[in-house]
Amino acid sequence: MNTMRWEKGALILLDQTKLPTEVCYLNCQNYQQVAEAIKNLRVRGAPAIGAAAAFGLVLAASDLKSCTLEEFQKGIETAALELAATRPTAVNLSWALERMLNRLRSLGKVSWEEAKEPLLQEALAIYNEDIENNKLMGHYGQELIPQKARILTHCNAGALATAGYGTALGVIRAAKEAGKEIKVYADETRPLLQGARLTSWELVQEEIQVTLITDNMAGYLMSKGMVDLVIVGADRIAANGDVANKIGTYSVAVLAREHGLPFYVAAPFSTVDLSLPSGKDIPIEERSHTEVTYFRGQKVAPEGVEVWNPAFDVTPHQLVTAIITERGVIQPPYHEGLAKAR
Amino acid sequence: MNTMRWEKGALILLDQTKLPTEVCYLNCQNYQQVAEAIKNLRVRGAPAIGAAAAFGLVLAASDLKSCTLEEFQKGIETAALELAATRPTAVNLSWALERMLNRLRSLGKVSWEEAKEPLLQEALAIYNEDIENNKLMGHYGQELIPQKARILTHCNAGALATAGYGTALGVIRAAKEAGKEIKVYADETRPLLQGARLTSWELVQEEIQVTLITDNMAGYLMSKGMVDLVIVGADRIAANGDVANKIGTYSVAVLAREHGLPFYVAAPFSTVDLSLPSGKDIPIEERSHTEVTYFRGQKVAPEGVEVWNPAFDVTPHQLVTAIITERGVIQPPYHEGLAKAR
Repeated sequence: MNTMRWEKGALILLDQTKLPTEVCYLNCQNYQQVAEAIKNLRVRGAPAIGAAAAFGLVLAASDLKSCTLEEFQKGIETAALELAATRPTAVNLSWALERMLNRLRSLGKVSWEEAKEPLLQEALAIYNEDIENNKLMGHYGQELIPQKARILTHCNAGALATAGYGTALGVIRAAKEAGKEIKVYADETRPLLQGARLTSWELVQEEIQVTLITDNMAGYLMSKGMVDLVIVGADRIAANGDVANKIGTYSVAVLAREHGLPFYVAAPFSTVDLSLPSGKDIPIEERSHTEVTYFRGQKVAPEGVEVWNPAFDVTPHQLVTAIITERGVIQPPYHEGLAKAR
Repeated sequence: MNTMRWEKGALILLDQTKLPTEVCYLNCQNYQQVAEAIKNLRVRGAPAIGAAAAFGLVLAASDLKSCTLEEFQKGIETAALELAATRPTAVNLSWALERMLNRLRSLGKVSWEEAKEPLLQEALAIYNEDIENNKLMGHYGQELIPQKARILTHCNAGALATAGYGTALGVIRAAKEAGKEIKVYADETRPLLQGARLTSWELVQEEIQVTLITDNMAGYLMSKGMVDLVIVGADRIAANGDVANKIGTYSVAVLAREHGLPFYVAAPFSTVDLSLPSGKDIPIEERSHTEVTYFRGQKVAPEGVEVWNPAFDVTPHQLVTAIITERGVIQPPYHEGLAKAR
């Protein structure tokens, strides 16, 4: 399985909206196609959209090859703004774009000819470092996972959410590679069913035992003593350790504490936003009502009903047992631990 | 809207699996059709399946009209067992059937000719008392609802779940009739979306403001101070006040306590099972995996994934602020309050 790859001057993206019934790849030839893919969740997951946007800027540069130096610079910046605006919550998106722009700025006033190779190398570095970071997270994080652990996860923080290997699922993969027997419970994750469609699919492929539940079963599952720990990914982590992640994460964190279970967050340092003192400053994307009222074209709610559809929520740091990063496992107090690991 | 009615010797049932897109009525001419309708959730909700099963026994009796007295008696008992076995959790089902059998026993050894009118009258009494009880629950319960309350509910405990008016939604209706301005948040209630399909539909029809959310949004909604109280129905209440209700209720109750919100249960006394000391004795129905892995014929999970699909969970009495019944509002300690109200 390949979330994305760079091939013959194009970004090949696995269209995740079609999973698990179809495995289709999109061939993105320009940055607008990448922006559309991010907006419509064909590629999703904080680290994955960062890497995809970086390749998007490489495509944007190529479209500007016949421009003047000034037009080239301005065109790249416009494309970066457009890509950054596709989704507001995951900070990895603006982090990756900023890193690309910094590389460009470091070259001085350049044409496409001079910029194309450095930009591609930077995007490939973002991509490759993401995989390396996930493996490091797996290395550090798997030490927290006991033998025969029964692990609940929410949404998809797997290979599909990253350049490869995964954050939360990367830790699970590493635990399995370390010889541990693992059983995973996957929240289906409404409204878009990333748990049912993506996490289950990844784990079935890897032959890791996985049981699918609806989101509202997590509490009852814990109350029956069927879960040992929770591990999830993140879309943005504030300086105090508050975590924005897929809607429903906060409820799972409250339930984990109620049942005395560890609640771990696994995310690369590019997800940490030290410019925000707390989670209440994180912008939370609200998505279309039809994600809730329609199901693959079928109407499931009556005309006239209102809908509230935030795509993320914020879990306060007090509910987070530890944050697993490529720089090691960070324990509370997070404002100290995160600042130190910067 | 009519959940069910008795007409020309048949039970006319609103097929709730077709809502909200189609309003279809089933014409049940024999008890097997009623059993099928209960099993497949064409009629659902603890009080509604009790009333439907009572009418089912009237139909069973009519099928036995040419039997001997002994065959008649035995045939009715067989039908009652079959109807009782359709769903295990809601005690109203066996309560209504037991009441019908008791009425029959009170007549001595009788033929269909002698039994038909008393049985029909008993079924109609169960039906009519259910509506009256719901109105009484509304009367008592609405006193707990403040002006401008923002109320979260889970699943459907409305007119559709009862003979009419509803339990949890009955209290909301009564609060509105008492002149209170109410805003309802409806959990969509996976896997079968009773909140999206049924609760939203009822409330839109009644012009009560309703906002639909996915189940995993309830915690975040509460954390943003957007909810004042929770009110749900019940499928069985044990002697100590533990409440079995639709899967996800327990998670909502934990979240309500975390946010300091009252958590009310509204149910007729026929839902109370004083023979069970606590909720851990309540049988919890597990339903087909395909309810989770398919959505109206569309596959949403990969081959090979396991599924856990309990239809109900148990909320311990410590999380229940009060139980609203037709005999008044019962406060903790419930083992005393429920025994006294018996």
